[in-house]
Amino acid sequence: MSDKQDTSKLWGGRFSEATDSFVQRFTASVDFDQRMANEDIDGSLAHASMLQSVGILSADELASIEQGLHQIREEITSGAFQWSVELEDVHMNIEARLTQLIGVTGKKLHTGRSRNDQVATDIRLYLRSAIDAIAGELTRLQRGTIELAAQHNDTVIPGFTHLQTAQPVAFGHHLLAWNEMLERDYGRLQDCRSRMNQSPLGAAALAGTTYPIDRAQTAAALGFDKPTENSLDSVSDRDFAIEFCGFAALLMTHLSRMSEELVLWTSAQFNFIELPDRFCTGSSIMPQKKNPDVPELVRGKVGRINGHLISLLTLMKSQPLAYNKDNQEDKEPLFDTVDTVLDSLRAFADMVPAIKARPEPMREAARRGFSTATDLADYLVRKGLPFRDAHEVVGKAVAHGVAENLDLSEMSLQTLQGFHSDIGEDVFEVLTLEGSLQARDHLGGTAPAQVSAACDRALARLAERT
Amino acid sequence: MSDKQDTSKLWGGRFSEATDSFVQRFTASVDFDQRMANEDIDGSLAHASMLQSVGILSADELASIEQGLHQIREEITSGAFQWSVELEDVHMNIEARLTQLIGVTGKKLHTGRSRNDQVATDIRLYLRSAIDAIAGELTRLQRGTIELAAQHNDTVIPGFTHLQTAQPVAFGHHLLAWNEMLERDYGRLQDCRSRMNQSPLGAAALAGTTYPIDRAQTAAALGFDKPTENSLDSVSDRDFAIEFCGFAALLMTHLSRMSEELVLWTSAQFNFIELPDRFCTGSSIMPQKKNPDVPELVRGKVGRINGHLISLLTLMKSQPLAYNKDNQEDKEPLFDTVDTVLDSLRAFADMVPAIKARPEPMREAARRGFSTATDLADYLVRKGLPFRDAHEVVGKAVAHGVAENLDLSEMSLQTLQGFHSDIGEDVFEVLTLEGSLQARDHLGGTAPAQVSAACDRALARLAERT
Amino acid sequence: MSDKQDTSKLWGGRFSEATDSFVQRFTASVDFDQRMANEDIDGSLAHASMLQSVGILSADELASIEQGLHQIREEITSGAFQWSVELEDVHMNIEARLTQLIGVTGKKLHTGRSRNDQVATDIRLYLRSAIDAIAGELTRLQRGTIELAAQHNDTVIPGFTHLQTAQPVAFGHHLLAWNEMLERDYGRLQDCRSRMNQSPLGAAALAGTTYPIDRAQTAAALGFDKPTENSLDSVSDRDFAIEFCGFAALLMTHLSRMSEELVLWTSAQFNFIELPDRFCTGSSIMPQKKNPDVPELVRGKVGRINGHLISLLTLMKSQPLAYNKDNQEDKEPLFDTVDTVLDSLRAFADMVPAIKARPEPMREAARRGFSTATDLADYLVRKGLPFRDAHEVVGKAVAHGVAENLDLSEMSLQTLQGFHSDIGEDVFEVLTLEGSLQARDHLGGTAPAQVSAACDRALARLAERT
Amino acid sequence: MSDKQDTSKLWGGRFSEATDSFVQRFTASVDFDQRMANEDIDGSLAHASMLQSVGILSADELASIEQGLHQIREEITSGAFQWSVELEDVHMNIEARLTQLIGVTGKKLHTGRSRNDQVATDIRLYLRSAIDAIAGELTRLQRGTIELAAQHNDTVIPGFTHLQTAQPVAFGHHLLAWNEMLERDYGRLQDCRSRMNQSPLGAAALAGTTYPIDRAQTAAALGFDKPTENSLDSVSDRDFAIEFCGFAALLMTHLSRMSEELVLWTSAQFNFIELPDRFCTGSSIMPQKKNPDVPELVRGKVGRINGHLISLLTLMKSQPLAYNKDNQEDKEPLFDTVDTVLDSLRAFADMVPAIKARPEPMREAARRGFSTATDLADYLVRKGLPFRDAHEVVGKAVAHGVAENLDLSEMSLQTLQGFHSDIGEDVFEVLTLEGSLQARDHLGGTAPAQVSAACDRALARLAERT
Repeated sequence: MSDKQDTSKLWGGRFSEATDSFVQRFTASVDFDQRMANEDIDGSLAHASMLQSVGILSADELASIEQGLHQIREEITSGAFQWSVELEDVHMNIEARLTQLIGVTGKKLHTGRSRNDQVATDIRLYLRSAIDAIAGELTRLQRGTIELAAQHNDTVIPGFTHLQTAQPVAFGHHLLAWNEMLERDYGRLQDCRSRMNQSPLGAAALAGTTYPIDRAQTAAALGFDKPTENSLDSVSDRDFAIEFCGFAALLMTHLSRMSEELVLWTSAQFNFIELPDRFCTGSSIMPQKKNPDVPELVRGKVGRINGHLISLLTLMKSQPLAYNKDNQEDKEPLFDTVDTVLDSLRAFADMVPAIKARPEPMREAARRGFSTATDLADYLVRKGLPFRDAHEVVGKAVAHGVAENLDLSEMSLQTLQGFHSDIGEDVFEVLTLEGSLQARDHLGGTAPAQVSAACDRALARLAERT
Repeated sequence: MSDKQDTSKLWGGRFSEATDSFVQRFTASVDFDQRMANEDIDGSLAHASMLQSVGILSADELASIEQGLHQIREEITSGAFQWSVELEDVHMNIEARLTQLIGVTGKKLHTGRSRNDQVATDIRLYLRSAIDAIAGELTRLQRGTIELAAQHNDTVIPGFTHLQTAQPVAFGHHLLAWNEMLERDYGRLQDCRSRMNQSPLGAAALAGTTYPIDRAQTAAALGFDKPTENSLDSVSDRDFAIEFCGFAALLMTHLSRMSEELVLWTSAQFNFIELPDRFCTGSSIMPQKKNPDVPELVRGKVGRINGHLISLLTLMKSQPLAYNKDNQEDKEPLFDTVDTVLDSLRAFADMVPAIKARPEPMREAARRGFSTATDLADYLVRKGLPFRDAHEVVGKAVAHGVAENLDLSEMSLQTLQGFHSDIGEDVFEVLTLEGSLQARDHLGGTAPAQVSAACDRALARLAERT
Repeated sequence: MSDKQDTSKLWGGRFSEATDSFVQRFTASVDFDQRMANEDIDGSLAHASMLQSVGILSADELASIEQGLHQIREEITSGAFQWSVELEDVHMNIEARLTQLIGVTGKKLHTGRSRNDQVATDIRLYLRSAIDAIAGELTRLQRGTIELAAQHNDTVIPGFTHLQTAQPVAFGHHLLAWNEMLERDYGRLQDCRSRMNQSPLGAAALAGTTYPIDRAQTAAALGFDKPTENSLDSVSDRDFAIEFCGFAALLMTHLSRMSEELVLWTSAQFNFIELPDRFCTGSSIMPQKKNPDVPELVRGKVGRINGHLISLLTLMKSQPLAYNKDNQEDKEPLFDTVDTVLDSLRAFADMVPAIKARPEPMREAARRGFSTATDLADYLVRKGLPFRDAHEVVGKAVAHGVAENLDLSEMSLQTLQGFHSDIGEDVFEVLTLEGSLQARDHLGGTAPAQVSAACDRALARLAERT
Repeated sequence: MSDKQDTSKLWGGRFSEATDSFVQRFTASVDFDQRMANEDIDGSLAHASMLQSVGILSADELASIEQGLHQIREEITSGAFQWSVELEDVHMNIEARLTQLIGVTGKKLHTGRSRNDQVATDIRLYLRSAIDAIAGELTRLQRGTIELAAQHNDTVIPGFTHLQTAQPVAFGHHLLAWNEMLERDYGRLQDCRSRMNQSPLGAAALAGTTYPIDRAQTAAALGFDKPTENSLDSVSDRDFAIEFCGFAALLMTHLSRMSEELVLWTSAQFNFIELPDRFCTGSSIMPQKKNPDVPELVRGKVGRINGHLISLLTLMKSQPLAYNKDNQEDKEPLFDTVDTVLDSLRAFADMVPAIKARPEPMREAARRGFSTATDLADYLVRKGLPFRDAHEVVGKAVAHGVAENLDLSEMSLQTLQGFHSDIGEDVFEVLTLEGSLQARDHLGGTAPAQVSAACDRALARLAERT
């Protein structure tokens, strides 16, 4: 069997030797770009319709092309379509089939365009609809998060810095911090969508075309805001893919932080929450295990997204204009990023509302660790000490507590007064968890009323989304 | 000399042992965060003023603090300020000096805030002003690019795909492709600015504070659009740094592509442009060398920015809330990104307007390489052939030209007719470089009139910037 | 249809609720880890044989297991095997089938091991054989490169620095620089193989097992050098995957540099080489195009490998011991890295020997650009000038040449003497390309005899490989 | 003040215009490459000595150069040396000063070399000595880790998978897992050193030199194993920097994992260890805080190293041979990687031996979480059940325990027999933590005797290091 193949390429006129069969497989993209078949057909329909409007195709030719493309769409949907690696990519496969179906008219479809602007159009259409699906799941996750927060506006949990007990906060307040991250992600996603929603169709190979095309017409037909400004840029630009992966890397970083906390909280050591069995798996050897697989896996998946981002940035580094074959490498990282983000958001949007808080262990943990020490310092400031001196006094009280294994609230008034004589009976109110929460009563603070109000504002923002 | 130091830390009350001196140096940030001294003082002034408004400081205390901070600002500006590693960071250094200068009142400044919200505020103030400086240089570079493009709306240069001659384009058209990249960069920069311009001040350590602070007042005083929504998020969020580095990575990727082209164009092989001597350097051993150092260096610098982006994403991966010491690592990559972007833009904004095109070699290169082959195919389509068949015909003519070392325009009419009988005398008009350019006369195409109009639109967009 | 599935998991005893069906798909790995089916069976065979040796399985049980596993291997090879997502991964799928085939004895196979050490074993076996395949292709590419170099030991090409003509070199010398990069890659690959070739089998879940297993026996049976030292490390270690991707990133970086040069050299501007048509493709719109797709694509593929490297590093960052579900994310980047490296090497190993040099354009390019200016400076040094002064003299001669469009060898003796009176008739010998090459006659230099000797040494090194 | 500077460059002969002053600063490297001054002088001394051996310098000239270079070394050490940005880099600064000191003979030093091979030599010398320093600190950390492990060969700690209690292990066993990671790091470091220890000196600009140099002499004088094979490769190769950063990224990944565990273990929730105060810091606002700054900071620092690795890989992507200005960007990431690794290792080597284990909380945690469930399953297998059936039985016992809040060891024999009638009185031995540890008595297992033996082997390996 020969290693060379005798295929009749669509671009073969100039060539004296067929492509090496391994090279053919190596350079073909149809295995992965067939995913954009629908978008490719949408683009071709808009292009053909425009060609007819400007007089390049007759009405009959257009009708024939449309009928052919509809049939191809059905063949693809039903799985009947025969993809061929020899035809390189999704574009050539569809065009060749079209000519097979409708004859010579099929050969006219490529008038006034090139695969360079065609693929640029397809990929933007694909990404735009992926963005819309992601926006939906992200909103669902945010809603679930906020609703859970609203139920826990006064459930006490230790707030950590350096993973050391810092100050008591409401569990709902903590969950709203998650929502703030996601809110920014949503903003970045929409900014990316706005910037990319321009039509490159008509840029042709790189310089535009000699046919009297109407780029505004195809742009409108495909739902783009307008045509792109420059033909060279249109076929060489992959900013949208990189900007999208930048969004995704930050989103997944946020999910990795939330995941880390879920893993910590479900450990025996923290025991702050329970995840339903349906989000966990067991061990093939240790019968007692119930592992938080979903958050662990999502935490790991930030790796692949950071990787895809670097992949695309590396790809574009120092490429001269306009289109180079390197660009074919843009698709797989982009597709996998879309899949990963959608799946991860779906898993979280399902799981977060099912989190079962365990208020008792949360509260018990907050009680330990001198979490109200700052409140005592603030108390002393209100008695007239400069903050720095109050800090020093409380530090000594804590050192005593560590040595004696006593929380501040467990010390006698006399003991406390040994550290500063201004301390009075009213100090014990300040040292309670509830008192500590209530006292942080300003915009963004953890007082239960602030948490409730913040939930309302957050839901109102969601409601404004179309 | 002892390895332990007997320093009196601002947080030392609870500790029984001084920090190890190596650990002190290892964990200190003052070497690099002193760069934010001005922002730190600005933040303290706003905070102090607010503390007085809400009755925590007296008017006299405020005046004293203000006077002290102004003096410190002068000391820093003049270089007289004594930075101390033992005081860890810019915040502690300034506060300690303040207390030295004004006595016990200085110790009251830290009331109602923490270093966690303080550093979050400082870094946002710093980044905001860096963004504004970058926006200025970016606009200057865009203006220079567009003005050069306007001068070359009909200068012919070969357009490349796969670095093979593709079709003739206007040099100005090529330059406008650069501008489109930069225009998107500007959009991303402004989106980043809008999203980050919120005040974290008042989040305190992580939960807010027990003092009756007015976060709206400090936000307004510092030019923020509003206070942030959630205290935990405020001290743990580093999205703005990552989003900024994402912007920077794309910008530098664009500059790396422009650089690659400048390096190619100044090579003896291309010889399309000349760079003034002042942007080049020589060789210590080869007396004839004139090296395009500036574009080469900028091309290389995309590496460090991609690196900083990964650095920050890795940093934040799976960090539990709220603040962790890891976050201290956010500053150096951010600072270096700002410096690199500013310097690279400055170098390009100076250099691009000084590019001297060499129209003759450009034109000569466009003439070779069968750059008008597509025009011939389009010609045949106008004569009635389906595009795919026309492509095949021209492919054969090109194969003949390669074998005979003849460009299409150099073949006789008879020869051309040997490939297709519909070819007539009018074909030679189509095969000229000017004809090819003129023919691509639609929005985004390379026809000289389109290039001029695109320059006008691009300048008008710049004019709308504030 | 219910979203919950009623599957009987192998670990289900402790669970009160079935896994969510989306979660099942989301967390399953069988879609990609079935690629290790052969290695999984190899590992099971070795494990079962050892269990029999130490008395845990009877000879009959072993025979039954072996027969079952052999049948499963055939089913997998023939495509008859039914993979099930509900069974999560390759391990569970094979074990479940085994029990189906041979009954209760199949349930004994998992004695004394866990999926944690099982997957660690499989992936090392997989990678080891991938490394050996890669080593073969790498050697083939090196051989082709050296043989081409040997044919061009005195073919003159301009050596570039800063992409500016620097000094003439032999084309073979340039190719040997490629070989040096690849030689280091080979060394790194073998170092990686040595370090990873240890058997984790017997680490069980994380702590070892209570059965009297013989780890040395399974290690030997599977071709490992020895068992690993620590059970916790064995199941948590993914160093080998990262080290391999580090090797791959450098190799692909080298191929990207070679690709860049091939793309430059096949451009009309350089025109130094020709690639056979079978490694190139055409354009759907521009009939004249012959694009160097293979080097472009390989150049682009460095992006995905850098990405995979970052993916794995991010994955492992700050994971506590021992095994976490995150680790499941190690496989896809590793598999894709193996495929990409193998394909890229194969493409290059096929293509490089088919490179057709064009000595005339190479020589012509070397003649231009004052490439022998350093030779003139060295000549003056031999006449007694300090190098720095000689450099200055030649710099002025070059400036004159640039202005007058004359190469040094084209200037008259009189003109040259105008720059320094010590210049004599013998200077013209020094200014020839051949003279310049010959003169660099030391180890590592470009003199043709040195190039030939270097080729011989390089081939001798290849011959030493097993 | 003029923006152009009237400096007399060492390469200025060919130039008609001085370098722009901003460009001068932008392209200069002296600010960071002065760090290699000692190596530059070492290289120059070896080069000069060789030039004298081969007759290019006289003995007097050599003596003069040596005396001048020694003086310069002293000036640099004492801080008296005047670095000048106008002289671009460390090489030019030193050479210019040499000529200032010894006159025209100084201008002869650069005979037969170029800055391209000079910087390649300097950076390898620098890195080699950095590697040796790192090897020392790494060995110190390993020794400290192993010695701590030896003290805790039978201290029980819960082994985790998925951060869920899995099986009891010895704390010393866990620490030895750390040592295994570090052991591999050491191997990679030494492999990197071996591969890079070749002398590029003599490659000159890119092609070798016309002088009769003796590369073997300079290689030997500088402690290199041999000269490099190819001059083009010698000046363009930066593999060693990338391979080193690859080593560093893995090492820092390991330290990040150890750090994560230290942070967890010092939390109130785990409370497994105590870190001395001298490795911790406090809070400016929360008086009770004692934060594990050192591990947190080290965990964060993996980000910068991953970033530097990507920075260098991006830098080298698709650079044509030989030297390009881009390469100047190799130094800062490399220097910072060296500093970060050295500091992080030093911090860990100081801190790890000072870790104070808290055996009681460790043991208490191991007791919870059904950590001996696997032992019960293994017990049942010994009674004759297939492993999978035993797993199922124990799973049900655990479910009962979860519901009743009873550990397996706390259930009555009767209760246990309710799950399987083969369970006898001897089961309680199996369910103890000690029994569980002891039972894993094979190479790599956690039995105390195995841990002790593993410590001995690990120390023996250290002892073999030179």
